[in-house]
Amino acid sequence: METRLLEFRTGSSPQTVDLTSEVGQFVADKGDGILQVFCPHATAGVALMETGAGSDADLLDIIDHLLPPDFRYRHQHGSPGHGADHLLPAIIAPSVTIPVIDGRLQLGTWQSVVFVDPNRDNPNRQVRLSFLAG
Amino acid sequence: METRLLEFRTGSSPQTVDLTSEVGQFVADKGDGILQVFCPHATAGVALMETGAGSDADLLDIIDHLLPPDFRYRHQHGSPGHGADHLLPAIIAPSVTIPVIDGRLQLGTWQSVVFVDPNRDNPNRQVRLSFLAG
Amino acid sequence: METRLLEFRTGSSPQTVDLTSEVGQFVADKGDGILQVFCPHATAGVALMETGAGSDADLLDIIDHLLPPDFRYRHQHGSPGHGADHLLPAIIAPSVTIPVIDGRLQLGTWQSVVFVDPNRDNPNRQVRLSFLAG
Repeated sequence: METRLLEFRTGSSPQTVDLTSEVGQFVADKGDGILQVFCPHATAGVALMETGAGSDADLLDIIDHLLPPDFRYRHQHGSPGHGADHLLPAIIAPSVTIPVIDGRLQLGTWQSVVFVDPNRDNPNRQVRLSFLAG
Repeated sequence: METRLLEFRTGSSPQTVDLTSEVGQFVADKGDGILQVFCPHATAGVALMETGAGSDADLLDIIDHLLPPDFRYRHQHGSPGHGADHLLPAIIAPSVTIPVIDGRLQLGTWQSVVFVDPNRDNPNRQVRLSFLAG
Repeated sequence: METRLLEFRTGSSPQTVDLTSEVGQFVADKGDGILQVFCPHATAGVALMETGAGSDADLLDIIDHLLPPDFRYRHQHGSPGHGADHLLPAIIAPSVTIPVIDGRLQLGTWQSVVFVDPNRDNPNRQVRLSFLAG
């Protein structure tokens, strides 16, 4: 299995990070198989969705509707609302797989690989790419 | 890796499509491994859930609760409410994997493979099946 | 493909079950590859999230916010609210993959493998672990 750990920084506000280009480069010299995108964090997820037409910002807004910051969370560490961040990966999982044919991600025209990070408290983030040839 | 692209039409209203039969046929002559079901669309997802007892229709209803059509979406293309469609794959991912043993999907009794499509604007849909033998 | 079926009991109230230890033991003698965690149930899911600091209990609470027990569900079998249970796997999928390197799950520090079971009606539960070497 070929695997690579991407490291990057987000910031002090909720963010999405479009990783499509890095992910595409990782598989470019590989043949057919399944790529796994995995983030080893308990307060982030990976979505396959459109970017650049507003939906990435819409996603950050809708997270507050799905996981309200003022909900009575038991989890009490971190900044206010951090309890919600810890539920995000149950809704937007930190692991997704993408088919690869002849070194090319078989994404649709409008699909991007998006790291979804509502967490203000940890700007140092990682994503592991792993390729299983088949 | 063996892979096949299914093509089908949905319609002008939100729909679910039960793909269990086609998916089962695809793996029937294969041995052990992992099947990936992937839809290359930014406004659809794949769920493993019960069909035929109302839950597939319930899912379309609950999507409007999770992603309200009247939310203030930045995404402005397409029919009213299309902004919500673009958030669906963050919640119901377009990629799922299923274990296969001796050519049989290891689904539970009540699990079906369901294409979830809230999008009124694009009736031409695809799902890619990919099998990694193991 | 190496595969194992875990069997366990939940109970008569919504529960989460931390399976990280069993999952780690399953891969401990394996090399590099992808582990799939799959539950063959239509009313449960698998999340990768923090446990032990309140978020597992928070998740059970937020499920009632996402899938309200008093929603007008068509699905009418089982206990009151069972219609919601049948939508859970669309939101918290029953299938997740985790990278494995040298027999070790590449989970983050705060990530656990959590079986999420809102269903009061079926305490006999299974999870299938499948490992694809790569």
